[in-house]
Amino acid sequence: MPADPVVDLEPITTEFRQSIAAILETFIRDKEAELASVGGDLAPLFTTARSYVEGGKQLRPAFAYWGWRAAGGSSKRLDAVMTAAAAIELVHASALVHDDVMDGSATRRGRPAAHRWFARLREPAPGKSGPEQGGPGRSDFGQSDFGQSAAILLGDLLLSWSDELLARSTLAPKVLQRGRVYFDKLRTEVVAGQYLDVLAQTSGRSSTSDAMRVLRYKSAKYTVERPLQFGAALAKADQPLLRALSSYGIPLGEAFQLRDDVLGVFGATDVTGKPSGDDIREGKRTLLMARAFDLATSAQIDVLLASFGHRDVDADGIAAVQDVLRETGALDAVETVISELTSAALSALRHAPIGDEEVCAALRVLSDRATSRLV
Amino acid sequence: MPADPVVDLEPITTEFRQSIAAILETFIRDKEAELASVGGDLAPLFTTARSYVEGGKQLRPAFAYWGWRAAGGSSKRLDAVMTAAAAIELVHASALVHDDVMDGSATRRGRPAAHRWFARLREPAPGKSGPEQGGPGRSDFGQSDFGQSAAILLGDLLLSWSDELLARSTLAPKVLQRGRVYFDKLRTEVVAGQYLDVLAQTSGRSSTSDAMRVLRYKSAKYTVERPLQFGAALAKADQPLLRALSSYGIPLGEAFQLRDDVLGVFGATDVTGKPSGDDIREGKRTLLMARAFDLATSAQIDVLLASFGHRDVDADGIAAVQDVLRETGALDAVETVISELTSAALSALRHAPIGDEEVCAALRVLSDRATSRLV
Repeated sequence: MPADPVVDLEPITTEFRQSIAAILETFIRDKEAELASVGGDLAPLFTTARSYVEGGKQLRPAFAYWGWRAAGGSSKRLDAVMTAAAAIELVHASALVHDDVMDGSATRRGRPAAHRWFARLREPAPGKSGPEQGGPGRSDFGQSDFGQSAAILLGDLLLSWSDELLARSTLAPKVLQRGRVYFDKLRTEVVAGQYLDVLAQTSGRSSTSDAMRVLRYKSAKYTVERPLQFGAALAKADQPLLRALSSYGIPLGEAFQLRDDVLGVFGATDVTGKPSGDDIREGKRTLLMARAFDLATSAQIDVLLASFGHRDVDADGIAAVQDVLRETGALDAVETVISELTSAALSALRHAPIGDEEVCAALRVLSDRATSRLV
Repeated sequence: MPADPVVDLEPITTEFRQSIAAILETFIRDKEAELASVGGDLAPLFTTARSYVEGGKQLRPAFAYWGWRAAGGSSKRLDAVMTAAAAIELVHASALVHDDVMDGSATRRGRPAAHRWFARLREPAPGKSGPEQGGPGRSDFGQSDFGQSAAILLGDLLLSWSDELLARSTLAPKVLQRGRVYFDKLRTEVVAGQYLDVLAQTSGRSSTSDAMRVLRYKSAKYTVERPLQFGAALAKADQPLLRALSSYGIPLGEAFQLRDDVLGVFGATDVTGKPSGDDIREGKRTLLMARAFDLATSAQIDVLLASFGHRDVDADGIAAVQDVLRETGALDAVETVISELTSAALSALRHAPIGDEEVCAALRVLSDRATSRLV
């Protein structure tokens, strides 16, 4: 990678994060006030909504911001663009809540996942074996059913709210309509990618092409390409720039997800916020695993099968899978792909019609940040 | 009820239904074309999306249409308003898909519920005991997990699409923004109502006030009040008309849901499209059941508890619950409430500032249709 002329540039500043967080908090507080007349028992929806928008990396709003800057967005409209960028974070919060339900995840960013958190609300009081007095609950509708239902509803609420927040942006309707094209694509494509992902999880297929397709729709377009284009469209980007942002965003997004996949197997808990080896327990069908199954001997396949997708696998089981990933060369192969994709993204960036050198520097730093081994 | 001057007026014509259905089909086909490059394995999402928008009563688009007419909407904008009205049907389709997941419902309108339908896709081929060859699936991620995950994703897709379709309406941005206020309220309130509903299902409380609150948010506002106001706002309704539509819409919507609750316990399958007594099996905490628990002797409570909320209850069990609902007077009490609410709605309608007599007649017919014993 070429030496960076703006080495100390920070593409996601604390001020940026705080600004997005403040927009989201104001919005949620408004909704809470609007629904106050319904009753205090809605409070858990707001508590969990907050917990899913707090502490995120805000990568998507950041890409939207830099896309807007790439298209020469006027700083006079900054507030309006920040509101639009924050709307993507509500889409993401919704996706995370529903993802956690689908994966049966116990935690999110070190806290209980929404469905677990809701389930705890309905824990029988000590000394009681059933629900509160006053009548029967559904005999077959227990704590975990309640937790899951409430989490499905929370995700729906966050998804509806993402539009509402976007519409709050004071950008001119025609400008907003231009951005909405990419906002809509982002929301449809991430669901398509997630569907392909759950399909792969049950189908037992593990082909490289399937894994790359999930990667593209669920991650690369959703995390990088579409947010960049969304922001750029809000500054009336022309087609050559929108295409250049795609040429940069897709390989970068793929590299970013592959790095995340490597961390999901090899990363320490303090880096990932998840138990080490969690992707092995969950049986996540990543390119890394697909390569391993392709390259493994039958003895190595037995090792993989003994742990992959088993919730109760212990530290030794995780370590054995890690060894197979190294020994087969699957890890090296994925690292090579990450390097190639990152190079492709940076090459596209060099040829992109972006005049502002600060924007180019920020996008270079983001590439490095999103794909390096240390993230 | 006063004799109706326009007795043969049909408030939801075949032409209206076909027009809404055509808008939805065109939209879904466009989305299918847009995602064709992703791959043919997304096809089940479109099949199920269609099955949830087909064959609905289209009550909500109809109320939106009549709200628009009540505010004197110009027939020149009819096409644009029909598109906006159809968007509510996508919200509803999303709510139904997620509702079926939460309730674990087997069927919807006589067909398999989405999560069941998706689960069947992953049935192992005859003679195979596990997933396809090529690698392992998640050991703990079976058919029903896939079905449920796919249905959650389908609901998300339909909810995102509702905005996209609304934005397609060619109404002026300022006009659309006026309607969006009620569209947003509708989407937030229905989730709030559903949350209160699942909360009541696990809490074991069955108070009349809780049941009425669920009724108001999950049904009355969502089905009648907000669609009416949404349509009216698209024709620049003033505050007195918006308030009058609320005074008519809330009691009517409550009466409508109470009628639905009665049918859920006493209705024949050919009327409801659900197995008779389904609400008893599901343990649905309606006003009817709340009243029954309030009025029942301890022997009658035992009869209720033996069947209510038990999936495997047989025809005798259902009949025994029906007897208790009659004997305690709970059924009569609810019928009285339905009559009173319907009268209140019709009285509000008489005082509403609606000049067009055809609109008043249509809203009277809709009141009758939604609350009468024969629906």
